[in-house]
Amino acid sequence: MAQIDLNSDLGEGFGPWSMGDDGAMLGLVTSANIACGGHAGDPETMFATLRLAAARGVTVGAHPGYADPMGFGRRVIPMTPGQIGRMVAAQVGTLMGVAALAGVAVRYVKPHGALANLAADRRDVADAIAAAVGALPAGLAVLAISGTEMEAASRAAGLPTFAEVFADRAYLPDGRLVPRDRPGAVIHDAGAAADRLLAFLESGQMPVQGGGSLPLQAASVCIHGDNPAAVAMAGEIRARLLAGGVTLAPFLAP
Amino acid sequence: MAQIDLNSDLGEGFGPWSMGDDGAMLGLVTSANIACGGHAGDPETMFATLRLAAARGVTVGAHPGYADPMGFGRRVIPMTPGQIGRMVAAQVGTLMGVAALAGVAVRYVKPHGALANLAADRRDVADAIAAAVGALPAGLAVLAISGTEMEAASRAAGLPTFAEVFADRAYLPDGRLVPRDRPGAVIHDAGAAADRLLAFLESGQMPVQGGGSLPLQAASVCIHGDNPAAVAMAGEIRARLLAGGVTLAPFLAP
Amino acid sequence: MAQIDLNSDLGEGFGPWSMGDDGAMLGLVTSANIACGGHAGDPETMFATLRLAAARGVTVGAHPGYADPMGFGRRVIPMTPGQIGRMVAAQVGTLMGVAALAGVAVRYVKPHGALANLAADRRDVADAIAAAVGALPAGLAVLAISGTEMEAASRAAGLPTFAEVFADRAYLPDGRLVPRDRPGAVIHDAGAAADRLLAFLESGQMPVQGGGSLPLQAASVCIHGDNPAAVAMAGEIRARLLAGGVTLAPFLAP
Amino acid sequence: MAQIDLNSDLGEGFGPWSMGDDGAMLGLVTSANIACGGHAGDPETMFATLRLAAARGVTVGAHPGYADPMGFGRRVIPMTPGQIGRMVAAQVGTLMGVAALAGVAVRYVKPHGALANLAADRRDVADAIAAAVGALPAGLAVLAISGTEMEAASRAAGLPTFAEVFADRAYLPDGRLVPRDRPGAVIHDAGAAADRLLAFLESGQMPVQGGGSLPLQAASVCIHGDNPAAVAMAGEIRARLLAGGVTLAPFLAP
Repeated sequence: MAQIDLNSDLGEGFGPWSMGDDGAMLGLVTSANIACGGHAGDPETMFATLRLAAARGVTVGAHPGYADPMGFGRRVIPMTPGQIGRMVAAQVGTLMGVAALAGVAVRYVKPHGALANLAADRRDVADAIAAAVGALPAGLAVLAISGTEMEAASRAAGLPTFAEVFADRAYLPDGRLVPRDRPGAVIHDAGAAADRLLAFLESGQMPVQGGGSLPLQAASVCIHGDNPAAVAMAGEIRARLLAGGVTLAPFLAP
Repeated sequence: MAQIDLNSDLGEGFGPWSMGDDGAMLGLVTSANIACGGHAGDPETMFATLRLAAARGVTVGAHPGYADPMGFGRRVIPMTPGQIGRMVAAQVGTLMGVAALAGVAVRYVKPHGALANLAADRRDVADAIAAAVGALPAGLAVLAISGTEMEAASRAAGLPTFAEVFADRAYLPDGRLVPRDRPGAVIHDAGAAADRLLAFLESGQMPVQGGGSLPLQAASVCIHGDNPAAVAMAGEIRARLLAGGVTLAPFLAP
Repeated sequence: MAQIDLNSDLGEGFGPWSMGDDGAMLGLVTSANIACGGHAGDPETMFATLRLAAARGVTVGAHPGYADPMGFGRRVIPMTPGQIGRMVAAQVGTLMGVAALAGVAVRYVKPHGALANLAADRRDVADAIAAAVGALPAGLAVLAISGTEMEAASRAAGLPTFAEVFADRAYLPDGRLVPRDRPGAVIHDAGAAADRLLAFLESGQMPVQGGGSLPLQAASVCIHGDNPAAVAMAGEIRARLLAGGVTLAPFLAP
Repeated sequence: MAQIDLNSDLGEGFGPWSMGDDGAMLGLVTSANIACGGHAGDPETMFATLRLAAARGVTVGAHPGYADPMGFGRRVIPMTPGQIGRMVAAQVGTLMGVAALAGVAVRYVKPHGALANLAADRRDVADAIAAAVGALPAGLAVLAISGTEMEAASRAAGLPTFAEVFADRAYLPDGRLVPRDRPGAVIHDAGAAADRLLAFLESGQMPVQGGGSLPLQAASVCIHGDNPAAVAMAGEIRARLLAGGVTLAPFLAP
């Protein structure tokens, strides 16, 4: 019987501004990717989110992104792989510092947004991120988009590596996500998303745009919660998976 | 025969902007307080400074300050002790993340500027900083201004604690520094500063403004290098201390 | 028959983060204080808010605050009056630049948060702000808290000056607002707030904490809309004022 | 007899950090491009630079760039032309606000760094910048790199338009600058740069990489001063131009 982790991007407020309903999402997911002050997040938000995640028994990962809050980490900022590695080390270190004070363990790293997309395609960027994660203490794992260079680089670096698929994103035949600005990129119907996930969990085959499917491995499913509709959809997907007999559990203990 | 550490604030550039001559200062000091991205510093600057310090055999500490680059950490930003503790944990974590990638150990924490001044006087702030340092891994020490609440709080928290005096700052009879905006606050003559330090190292008595002296303990002397005159003065002080038979060595090995 | 302006702080999003429901508030107020990139706001948010205000026929003012988004402009950042004047000139200029592109006129300046509170009490700060506003082109007016040094400084500088009272804040006998951290500082009941305003508009006497009242002049009432409850309260106050025969109109045409 | 303007990028400090020797450069140039808080600059730096330029009789222009101080405006940040126009309006407005307080007129706009390079090639970006400049009050001119889309867009928008060439940069046969990362991109010899400029001022033909030359028009020559060697070179170029009988004067009066 299938078991899977549900992860979501949380702690994405910024000072007085909030983003999404972290409290609701922490009741749905088994792993929380927490922003590290790059694309979002600040010490207060990190601390509160870490504490809330720990109180709910949710495993915590670091979610580094381009240091570009105005673009929410969704714009590629021109940087060398070396600069990216140092930025990732700095951001994950930031979250680990706050987590130490909060008494919470950070277990994995998942790149965010445009950085994750670049690391999916560019091995040099993925290698730099993997090197940064590997240099940090505490045996951090990597949560990578399934089938990407990031996944390959992390495995090549000998890091504990887990792959994720997206509940609400369509795939191209080459395994990449359909870019957000193309039609059909985002699946808005919770039932359709759940059907797709259940079929994938049974078969290991992910449907791709244009028909057909692609073999993918996944230890986790990424669900979004940055608006009320997303939270509702996440809740429906979770309920459908549970109803379908899927066990929801983190890929690493908290 | 006396032994003392010389420490200086380094890595205080910010992106394309540099501050002081870190290369020169790393040839003079035995410990380097490296900015953590709060009042100054960024991942590139941290990494380069960490590597340079390690290459010179200089011990490295974290130098957190108010997250106020425009004020260079010299303005008190209203924050609760709890917020200050979380900010310090975040910043020290940032430097530790970059240091892990650089293969360099961070050995101690020294608060910067207005944060250090506040922690010198306010025990609740000092306690919050000590709690943050104590929560971080790796047995970090605290480098505190001698005779302050920060020193007391750090000792009370059971942290390895070292005290510093200033080579170029005058003291008030109560042991606090003469504020920078008052006459005589800064000693501009290297010879006078060296005479004062040598006498202090021999007697344990620090001269205070208005005459008389104060018993202080110190494992380190803070010297500044943020402009060419300061670098020259630091060089003279170092030479005078060596000529006076003082051994210069870090209070903790690199 | 009484006429009054209703003003509110709008455009207080920041990049991907939103704050309050500007669309709803623009249907309630007659003047909009728009954040200028200091405590909140960015070119995109400014432009969109300016356009929306113009489309609704709402008069636009600049709402400068401390350049401290993490503190939302509610912390006093230590600055000289001269520095404050230059900061205000920069921020109002920023909004005027975006407004020129949007084809919208900026008609007045209202300081925000901790800056407004400081300028209420400190004449040197108020004078610096008035000097900055007076130096800018286009005959900008000042919207000041009634009875404050800011109002006096603006009048002394010969600027068009309008005073505001708060719908939801209690007053001290000396005319200052009860600080937010004291009991009774904020009036949460819309009916009570409306009763108080109607009585004030009729009598010119504002009730103060501890009993009694204070003569105040006001051309505008500040209402808040940074959360759903605040928007609802603003709507009720507006409805009650209209039902009470008060004409709602901006103190300056758009 | 030839007349030309010398312009340089000034006011590129950031809070406590300085960049270049603005005092020295203001003795050499006839026009100063002042950073607007995007890639560099803050209200204090703007105000001081504006005042200093005015005291030296140097004409002042706004120098907007990507809001990316870490990259010093030399990285392309993905933005739509509309977003770029709003950013430029905001930044030029910022400088105009500070300039109003300083009693100094801003006469022109010159885009900075990666923004200038993009606007040189992309007409939609250049059009957005020209629209922003045209919407601002005071009849601002544009200073554009000679032969670029920015120059064409500015002329098409009916703005007063002036073209510049670079003293220390090599040109490609198509009129674009040789990118900084290619060999020969930067001319390091002041004598060679001066020879080249004098020949160009006489013939209107700019030598291009690989041999041959290109007809260019120019009202101004850009010289750099961000390090001591650049200041020395700028001084030599100025002296050579004067010795060659060239009159140095701004393209617009201060």
